[in-house]
Amino acid sequence: MSDTHSQANDWRSQTYRVLKDGFVRVVDVMGDDSSVVQAARISYGSGTKKLHEDRGLIRYLMRHRHSTPFEMCEIKLHVRVPMDCWRQWIRHRTANVNEYSTRYSEAIDAIQTTDPTEWRTQSSSNRQGSDSNLAIDQGDALSDREMQLHQLSRNVYRERLEAGVSREQARKDLPLSTYTEAYWKIDLHNLLHFLSLRMDSHAQYEIRAYANVIGREIVAKWVPLTWEAFEDYRLESVSFSRCELNILRQLNRGDSEQAKATAIELGWLDDKGDVIKSNRELVEFESKLQSIGQYVPWTRK
Amino acid sequence: MSDTHSQANDWRSQTYRVLKDGFVRVVDVMGDDSSVVQAARISYGSGTKKLHEDRGLIRYLMRHRHSTPFEMCEIKLHVRVPMDCWRQWIRHRTANVNEYSTRYSEAIDAIQTTDPTEWRTQSSSNRQGSDSNLAIDQGDALSDREMQLHQLSRNVYRERLEAGVSREQARKDLPLSTYTEAYWKIDLHNLLHFLSLRMDSHAQYEIRAYANVIGREIVAKWVPLTWEAFEDYRLESVSFSRCELNILRQLNRGDSEQAKATAIELGWLDDKGDVIKSNRELVEFESKLQSIGQYVPWTRK
Amino acid sequence: MSDTHSQANDWRSQTYRVLKDGFVRVVDVMGDDSSVVQAARISYGSGTKKLHEDRGLIRYLMRHRHSTPFEMCEIKLHVRVPMDCWRQWIRHRTANVNEYSTRYSEAIDAIQTTDPTEWRTQSSSNRQGSDSNLAIDQGDALSDREMQLHQLSRNVYRERLEAGVSREQARKDLPLSTYTEAYWKIDLHNLLHFLSLRMDSHAQYEIRAYANVIGREIVAKWVPLTWEAFEDYRLESVSFSRCELNILRQLNRGDSEQAKATAIELGWLDDKGDVIKSNRELVEFESKLQSIGQYVPWTRK
Amino acid sequence: MSDTHSQANDWRSQTYRVLKDGFVRVVDVMGDDSSVVQAARISYGSGTKKLHEDRGLIRYLMRHRHSTPFEMCEIKLHVRVPMDCWRQWIRHRTANVNEYSTRYSEAIDAIQTTDPTEWRTQSSSNRQGSDSNLAIDQGDALSDREMQLHQLSRNVYRERLEAGVSREQARKDLPLSTYTEAYWKIDLHNLLHFLSLRMDSHAQYEIRAYANVIGREIVAKWVPLTWEAFEDYRLESVSFSRCELNILRQLNRGDSEQAKATAIELGWLDDKGDVIKSNRELVEFESKLQSIGQYVPWTRK
Repeated sequence: MSDTHSQANDWRSQTYRVLKDGFVRVVDVMGDDSSVVQAARISYGSGTKKLHEDRGLIRYLMRHRHSTPFEMCEIKLHVRVPMDCWRQWIRHRTANVNEYSTRYSEAIDAIQTTDPTEWRTQSSSNRQGSDSNLAIDQGDALSDREMQLHQLSRNVYRERLEAGVSREQARKDLPLSTYTEAYWKIDLHNLLHFLSLRMDSHAQYEIRAYANVIGREIVAKWVPLTWEAFEDYRLESVSFSRCELNILRQLNRGDSEQAKATAIELGWLDDKGDVIKSNRELVEFESKLQSIGQYVPWTRK
Repeated sequence: MSDTHSQANDWRSQTYRVLKDGFVRVVDVMGDDSSVVQAARISYGSGTKKLHEDRGLIRYLMRHRHSTPFEMCEIKLHVRVPMDCWRQWIRHRTANVNEYSTRYSEAIDAIQTTDPTEWRTQSSSNRQGSDSNLAIDQGDALSDREMQLHQLSRNVYRERLEAGVSREQARKDLPLSTYTEAYWKIDLHNLLHFLSLRMDSHAQYEIRAYANVIGREIVAKWVPLTWEAFEDYRLESVSFSRCELNILRQLNRGDSEQAKATAIELGWLDDKGDVIKSNRELVEFESKLQSIGQYVPWTRK
Repeated sequence: MSDTHSQANDWRSQTYRVLKDGFVRVVDVMGDDSSVVQAARISYGSGTKKLHEDRGLIRYLMRHRHSTPFEMCEIKLHVRVPMDCWRQWIRHRTANVNEYSTRYSEAIDAIQTTDPTEWRTQSSSNRQGSDSNLAIDQGDALSDREMQLHQLSRNVYRERLEAGVSREQARKDLPLSTYTEAYWKIDLHNLLHFLSLRMDSHAQYEIRAYANVIGREIVAKWVPLTWEAFEDYRLESVSFSRCELNILRQLNRGDSEQAKATAIELGWLDDKGDVIKSNRELVEFESKLQSIGQYVPWTRK
Repeated sequence: MSDTHSQANDWRSQTYRVLKDGFVRVVDVMGDDSSVVQAARISYGSGTKKLHEDRGLIRYLMRHRHSTPFEMCEIKLHVRVPMDCWRQWIRHRTANVNEYSTRYSEAIDAIQTTDPTEWRTQSSSNRQGSDSNLAIDQGDALSDREMQLHQLSRNVYRERLEAGVSREQARKDLPLSTYTEAYWKIDLHNLLHFLSLRMDSHAQYEIRAYANVIGREIVAKWVPLTWEAFEDYRLESVSFSRCELNILRQLNRGDSEQAKATAIELGWLDDKGDVIKSNRELVEFESKLQSIGQYVPWTRK
């Protein structure tokens, strides 16, 4: 096998490290970009074979949110993840899962630790997010206490097992940061849905780290045409609501006053045309306007 | 490649004919018996690797209705099926499907025809089943009329297309016997569930023909250990209800009178201990008793 | 009960006619807008009870594609639909279904007929769509032939049953236009997904007719806040891809030349900056530009 | 409302305590036994309305594993469960779930504690189960250490929040015994499947406690005919495999020698006809034989 070839298939044999002690590795795949095309073409019949190239067809399918051809590819991953992260992961119901059983075997002796520089502050704008990192001296103290807690909980777990307590009960006080492992098998359509939610900047850092590896290191190499289309039409796309389209139309014909009137009507601005501070929909719209180089017709003081 | 090897893998490359113009063929598979074992062992941890052999582990999993390890295998089939049969097939919601589109392309020019010897009579005991076949002279007449109908409907379809009617509307009066094609992808656990229902003697002849080919020609060769366990613990197993177990217990201690009293209480026998003719549960129980060589303590005149 | 109240609940008791002989009626519902709010609030904890009003919370959930709170509402419909339309309907796998069985009972004696004015021509731009209607004289001939075919197929069905053929086999040549009935139960999230696909202008006329009734007559009255949010953020929203956003940005800073260069690079325009006729993505983009009142920097001759 | 009526509907308004600080309560239901019947009858058509009584029809459906009519009933529960137990619960993928978010709000301040008498020993026969309870003096020590661990982990959690650490990160070391809450909505068919697995004696004590309350306190009162059929044909039924049926047949015709020969062939007995100690399938079969009052033709020394 040539070097080029082995590099090209690296994603199939590599174990990708995530966080400190986690990983993702590919166990098996079924199909690739050509399977998406093959499935679409049975729907369309033989008459279309010459009309589309594969890339164009895949982009068409993605653009119009056709889901079934992407379900014809399947991937099986072996992952090692902190249980806290796994609690989010397992909420995606369309996957097949076999998880390491701590009823049957002793819990994996690995736990997610936090370096003094890695403690994140509560986000002020997003009730479920993090902002910047805490100062190092605070971080030192927090990491010390984390270590104390990890040691006590591991000791207690061992004491229980040694006293003859059943594994299923001994595990009850393991910290959520304890690593678990699983085989996780999912079709490409549902995997892309998982990635669109979990690669998003609002997803928690930990699961985002896994999603980015799965997306950018594995899926991008496994089905490159599908991945490109996914980036263009899903990941990097922006959607405008009916209300936003109205304002956009008014701005495009240069009617700032009407645009402001619409925003007042929507409750985004107050009666004087001043911005309602806590309105998140307005903040999101302003950032969309900026992303397309459109001016914002009101000011945020 | 030796002859032996090519025979052994025949199921992967062969197109299996079903009915007159239908078929089933394997497009792709993920995993085999060893993947079931691999998945079970991540649940059980490494400690068990030496304790079980693969066959024993697979039988254990099947016996105790563990489902997730069998979900780790996946198969993709290409099938050609009359639409009437497909209507039943598609009711299994756990598969991925891409079907030939008669909006996009002209309908497949094949239709399920019935030989004069193949017309089945309405079952008298089962409202949704068939019994024996009709006499040949009746069959001749029915097959003639079938041909007339097929010709008219195909002519009408062609006339519509020639008049410029859209395909999506022209197809509206195609007979249910028209063939369709699909890629059908499903995991092994859900496939076994499909087979347990559709290989059953109460399933309609047509879908049973497909299920038997998929089960006995494909799955049996793809995952032989799983198939053997499936036959032993599912297909060929018999389940006794709480009521039936009570009577069995009474029969095993030789107490026919008590057994009959129980059956009277259940409403299976009338006050005099005579069989209630229309009671299907009773008929099913008698056949179970016979299948284990146990005597039936009442008589059916 | 006052008139106002009975009108308000009309949607719960009314049978909505669709097509000539089809219908939709509500059998049962679980929950309403307040159940969506209730479910979201258990996720967010009690701290938020006062911060959001219900409408704002529902709009937030819809905007950010939160799905699980909408799954907390459930609706059960009784529908009567041509089998051809049902073939599309049943492809949505997330619903619970009990369909009328033509194995068990005789087929429903109703069939979708087409008036002479209702025959639709094949779309020239969309391989799977229809355009305008055929001329009345052509329509007359087509409707005549439809009637002949319907009569023959019904006669053949009756002859088979009278000859003693089993129902499961006699039905094999029923036209796809034969009506079937079903109970169809689905949660609100998955129902909205169904509606977003089937109310779309590219959906076939027949299923669109059902989707419009379910959406605009039933869901809009059952969960009015959710429906309003669904219209604003899903039905009436427009999404721009990464490529489209690039061009939009260039247009907004007045750089038509750069916009055209980008379009050439994308293969939407040829080397001379002329439109590629068959490019559907380009047509879609132009129509989006028009919908926001943005000018199109190239001309379509 | 009379006392009788309020008692009869008690299950709808009562909060059932489970474990020390957990609960289950009904939020909403759709349908009841009559909805199962209604759904089955649309499948069977009007012809059958008089033939079956409701109870008979429900028993028929359960006996023959018809699933779709039971999907026509839906229940929504509000549950409070230790996270360790919830990890098992959430593996059932067919439910709708909204869980309390510890990203959004502070973790619930309740944790599953263990009385000195409640510590269970590791099962010797079942790698994933428990046997008897530990002695009280050992239990005292274990419960003391549990309290220490709970206090430290709660202190660490509070310290993090006070230092400004984001909730999503502060929670990472909460013990699995921390309570969570959720709305959990599921159809009756899938609920019965959940109950058949989680009321089983091999399910872990904690989830079994919840399943028993849901089954015996709620479902049994909500759909009494369905529950009775479920007990008769599922919970209390016994299934015999093909191998077991063979031996049963031999025993019923009095041929102990042949029965033993079969067991030797199966690897259940060694060449001399002595029991293989570690064979769990054999142990299970012996217990089935005893349950129907059939003698065991070999001896276990």
